[in-house]
Amino acid sequence: MNNVAGFKCVDCGREHHVDEVEYVCVSCGGNLDVVYDYDLICSRLTKSSLAADPTLTMWRYRALLPINSSSETPPLTVGWTPIYDCPAVARRLGLKQLWIKDDGRNPTGSFKDRPSALAVVKAREAGARIVTTASSGNAGSALAGICASIGMESIIFVPALAPPAKIAQLLIYGSTVVLVEGSYDQAYDLCLDASKKFGWYQRSTGYNPFTREGKKTAALEIAEQLNWDVPDKVIVPVGDGNIISGLWKGFNDLYRIGFIEKLPKMIGAQSQNASAIVDASATDGILQDQPAHTVADSINVGKPRDATMAVRAIRESGGCGVKVTDEEIIQSIPRLARETGVFVEPGAAASYAALVKGVESGTIASEDRVLLMLTGNGLKDVETARQAAGEPIQVAPVIDLSELESRIVDARNAQKM
Amino acid sequence: MNNVAGFKCVDCGREHHVDEVEYVCVSCGGNLDVVYDYDLICSRLTKSSLAADPTLTMWRYRALLPINSSSETPPLTVGWTPIYDCPAVARRLGLKQLWIKDDGRNPTGSFKDRPSALAVVKAREAGARIVTTASSGNAGSALAGICASIGMESIIFVPALAPPAKIAQLLIYGSTVVLVEGSYDQAYDLCLDASKKFGWYQRSTGYNPFTREGKKTAALEIAEQLNWDVPDKVIVPVGDGNIISGLWKGFNDLYRIGFIEKLPKMIGAQSQNASAIVDASATDGILQDQPAHTVADSINVGKPRDATMAVRAIRESGGCGVKVTDEEIIQSIPRLARETGVFVEPGAAASYAALVKGVESGTIASEDRVLLMLTGNGLKDVETARQAAGEPIQVAPVIDLSELESRIVDARNAQKM
Repeated sequence: MNNVAGFKCVDCGREHHVDEVEYVCVSCGGNLDVVYDYDLICSRLTKSSLAADPTLTMWRYRALLPINSSSETPPLTVGWTPIYDCPAVARRLGLKQLWIKDDGRNPTGSFKDRPSALAVVKAREAGARIVTTASSGNAGSALAGICASIGMESIIFVPALAPPAKIAQLLIYGSTVVLVEGSYDQAYDLCLDASKKFGWYQRSTGYNPFTREGKKTAALEIAEQLNWDVPDKVIVPVGDGNIISGLWKGFNDLYRIGFIEKLPKMIGAQSQNASAIVDASATDGILQDQPAHTVADSINVGKPRDATMAVRAIRESGGCGVKVTDEEIIQSIPRLARETGVFVEPGAAASYAALVKGVESGTIASEDRVLLMLTGNGLKDVETARQAAGEPIQVAPVIDLSELESRIVDARNAQKM
Repeated sequence: MNNVAGFKCVDCGREHHVDEVEYVCVSCGGNLDVVYDYDLICSRLTKSSLAADPTLTMWRYRALLPINSSSETPPLTVGWTPIYDCPAVARRLGLKQLWIKDDGRNPTGSFKDRPSALAVVKAREAGARIVTTASSGNAGSALAGICASIGMESIIFVPALAPPAKIAQLLIYGSTVVLVEGSYDQAYDLCLDASKKFGWYQRSTGYNPFTREGKKTAALEIAEQLNWDVPDKVIVPVGDGNIISGLWKGFNDLYRIGFIEKLPKMIGAQSQNASAIVDASATDGILQDQPAHTVADSINVGKPRDATMAVRAIRESGGCGVKVTDEEIIQSIPRLARETGVFVEPGAAASYAALVKGVESGTIASEDRVLLMLTGNGLKDVETARQAAGEPIQVAPVIDLSELESRIVDARNAQKM
């Protein structure tokens, strides 16, 4: 990874040589940011070299990733997820343009396949036999699935109240699953302690400096898929803050190497029941830990692990945070599905809820070209979505067709209300 | 669709002009097969024209599909799903080569996005406002999602015992859902009666002659993704029989236009609790309806609607049917997930179970290059998979690390047993 110049602590600013650190700042314990040698990258990567590259996964951006040139990447195809233009929704909301990027199409059903795939490459580079992470669900299943694809062992720490489908997914992939009777934040602390003691490779968000780099690949894709003309505003669900900081990193990488001429504003979407980063970015930028209890498990984080960089992404970009209610999140799932054909999990739906609220409040203006980052597949948490989905008609196998017709008409009218 | 020469009844053999029929044979009511003008197709499609085509969805094979040249296709990206080479599994089973094709990566999580996308194009060509289908779950959610993406109404008939996640998915996409208190076969008959009376566009498998054409795109992809060197054997889960007949159609199309030089043997995988097509293909080829009660809902079909062509695919290709137990299906889910990183639903896992059984019985030989068609995402039915997934460790947020370690060691040993 000679494209990496070093690491820089996001808190104290100290710079570290590549070989000097493993995870966090040796001075203050702060998270690290990977610093690149952009001149070298420019000599290796051009728009036309990219256009000629048939690799349609996150690895098409290898020149911008902190991995060794000889490192094998896992076989599951991660990234290069579709972007859909949604003219009808844009029209209804009075927006110039709206796109959605569906990262639920990744192999384990979420955006988290990106950072987990990168972390697994780093784990192999480090000679690790076991990889661990704390997870509210998606990061864990991503790590579990990608580890399974290469025969590496994984141990996943999740809060006991994670959705059953997510816990099942971990077990099915063969992970050793530790359900922690507490919050994600408590699962995180226990996972960290255990990995330090037992020497497992630690993938947890924030502490591992590479997850942000995996996550930035979505921004690289957004820019390239939109022909290097980035959206004005990108709305991102925020839990630990690592996705929004990752996307911001990606856009900045492209700006630095001259692939894009402007940067989007980053808009963080949080539930009002777990809003630490939105609150910090709206005030003095200082994080106040707070209890978290949103139905959107993927963003149910009271003590965000990448807060500094998330707040920086929102502020530097000239964006803002938007808080939505859990009710708005749940209602957004069928609305988005019915308008676009894309079914997302609650965490992802927060970005749509924030869009609607942002339009209402004027934060998002009619001349804006907006992209919603959809971070997880709806099949990850059907139970929650079900609450806002309406009811089927139930009939006997033999029924008078006129009666069937009138029941169908009633059901369709009820749905339209 | 001037590439279509006409339709041919799969039962009585009568040929029909394109404008003469809508769904089934006007003489005997049998299913229809689309007959192509291969000379015209050859003049339009070459391997190099395909190689230069940037379209990476099922629509890259438009020249081989029965749609009008001016027809718009739905925006969701269907098809061009990944094929993974699985050398470790091949080695363990003593096979020359094993690939899996993961169609759970389609937009609504199953293979059925292919036929439903094509049916929606045909519905629009016919000027329909409402599309209907009977479904054991996946065909319905595919139709519901694709209809949502273009603002078309859908009415879906499903057996009341379909997995709750599949029913929820339909409602979330905004379909009107009719739960029929009976089998898939009864839901099918009611859906057919209703569509005839109310003039809805009918997508149901078998009755609609175009679903097979949508399904064949997976075979076209398999051949192209493997550089036109097709597998010796393709193992396909069989319910209505329309997927196996679709794949066989696709391989034959390619053979007819000279893109491939040999045809694979088609192996149908069924549960022994719903084995009408395997039974028919092993005896006189005549279908005997039988009760169906397999845990693999996607292939829980007692009265298969494309039986003639499915049996023909197995017999003409020199393949065979393989029956597996429900227990083998359920156990196959974590095995496949742990060996490949791909989590599939029970119906899809039947192909892996049939592979293992075929190797044991000698039906699949060591020199065979085999591909498993994986037809649905595991997140579609987590409950069933959960039965074979093992148990997590549950701990308090504060725990002695040595105790944690010993519990992790125990769990990992238990998993290996």
